[in-house]
Amino acid sequence: MTPERYRRIRQMLAMRQPDLTVCLERVHKPHNLAAMMRNCDAAGAHHVHVVWNTRHEIRTGTSVGAQNWLKLHSHKSTADALASLKTQGMQVLVTHLSEQAVDFRRIDYTRPTAIWFGQERTGATPEAVAAADQQIIIPMLGMTQSLNVSVAGALILYEAQRQRQLAGLYNQPRLEEAECQRILFEGGYP
Amino acid sequence: MTPERYRRIRQMLAMRQPDLTVCLERVHKPHNLAAMMRNCDAAGAHHVHVVWNTRHEIRTGTSVGAQNWLKLHSHKSTADALASLKTQGMQVLVTHLSEQAVDFRRIDYTRPTAIWFGQERTGATPEAVAAADQQIIIPMLGMTQSLNVSVAGALILYEAQRQRQLAGLYNQPRLEEAECQRILFEGGYP
Ligand SMILES: C[S@@+](CC[C@H](N)C(=O)[O-])C[C@H]1O[C@@H](n2cnc3c(N)ncnc32)[C@H](O)[C@@H]1O
Ligand SMILES: C[S@@+](CC[C@H](N)C(=O)[O-])C[C@H]1O[C@@H](n2cnc3c(N)ncnc32)[C@H](O)[C@@H]1O
Repeated sequence: MTPERYRRIRQMLAMRQPDLTVCLERVHKPHNLAAMMRNCDAAGAHHVHVVWNTRHEIRTGTSVGAQNWLKLHSHKSTADALASLKTQGMQVLVTHLSEQAVDFRRIDYTRPTAIWFGQERTGATPEAVAAADQQIIIPMLGMTQSLNVSVAGALILYEAQRQRQLAGLYNQPRLEEAECQRILFEGGYP
Repeated sequence: MTPERYRRIRQMLAMRQPDLTVCLERVHKPHNLAAMMRNCDAAGAHHVHVVWNTRHEIRTGTSVGAQNWLKLHSHKSTADALASLKTQGMQVLVTHLSEQAVDFRRIDYTRPTAIWFGQERTGATPEAVAAADQQIIIPMLGMTQSLNVSVAGALILYEAQRQRQLAGLYNQPRLEEAECQRILFEGGYP
């Protein structure tokens, strides 16, 4: 690995947010998974949770390799994923098109946060909606009911990124060194 | 058409922004075109310009019908599209991953604005970049070079929407009545 590449990766790792994460519940279209990985990488959300066996689909998608720079966590069930996030003390925000949902811009994302996204057709499961700490929504002014899931992901992640930048959370390294070493080892020698 | 549906469409039309538009230069993947139409509808950007014969692809995409609520303008060439936008007095902002590009959050979108997006693989053409008033970029903190085009579109359109809401531009109808009648006629009887 060249010194330039090492520095580039270190610089990226120094901005990773271990406590800003997403969970993709049965999101299955490869292009959506690939786009969401790029969103996470771009906003510095390091840990990505997926419910069900989507890892295979992530690998076969039109991905530009963003998943190589992230840490993927596969869960067999919604309950498993929820338990994992709650054990880590995350606030779980489920994106949901309901009356109870709060405008996504009114949320404090500087807290340890998991943003939960639902399947392309059916959305988040009732189980996830019930267990979440809060339902959030991106207001829409038109006739269509919902946005594309990776589009919704980007809007929320960039709002989180904006808030965290203002709060200084990108000013010093926060990802644990063991994970940095893993990424350097696996991503450094392509 | 039921009175409820009429009211719903009228309400949507009352928030349409005739002077916030996008131009999709050779964007060709149906799922990206469909997602971008949903973005425009959701943010109230009424006029959508496309360069090249993508209208067919828009119709065959996994669209949820957002394009029925928008006004599409097809152009045969980049030059034609640019001329059309400039004649209307729009500032043309080209999304471009360059050193000269300005952070998209530092732009004033309350002015008549056209946001120009490039093809999935190759980006905006040199011709479009050269002719634009300004290059804009969404900063990325990770290793991947670019975002999905519909994702980039949503981030910029929602920033424009936020600024225009603050400026009161959604407080009274702005779309011309003839276009409202067309939409009511074509969209009101599905
Ligand atoms: C196409 S939507 C699913 C629509 C589904 N019919 C429903 O009612 O939930 C797929 C996912 O995108 C996200 N999403 C789409 N539009 C959203 C919005 N306006 N606000 C928040 N999340 C949204 C959510 O994660 C949702 O589960
Ligand atoms: C996948 S990108 C094209 C990448 C191409 N290799 C290039 O260098 O332009 C497709 C389109 O998405 C938009 N886009 C993607 N990432 C962007 C970013 N970070 N800032 C602004 N626009 C972006 C632009 O419209 C771009 O033309």
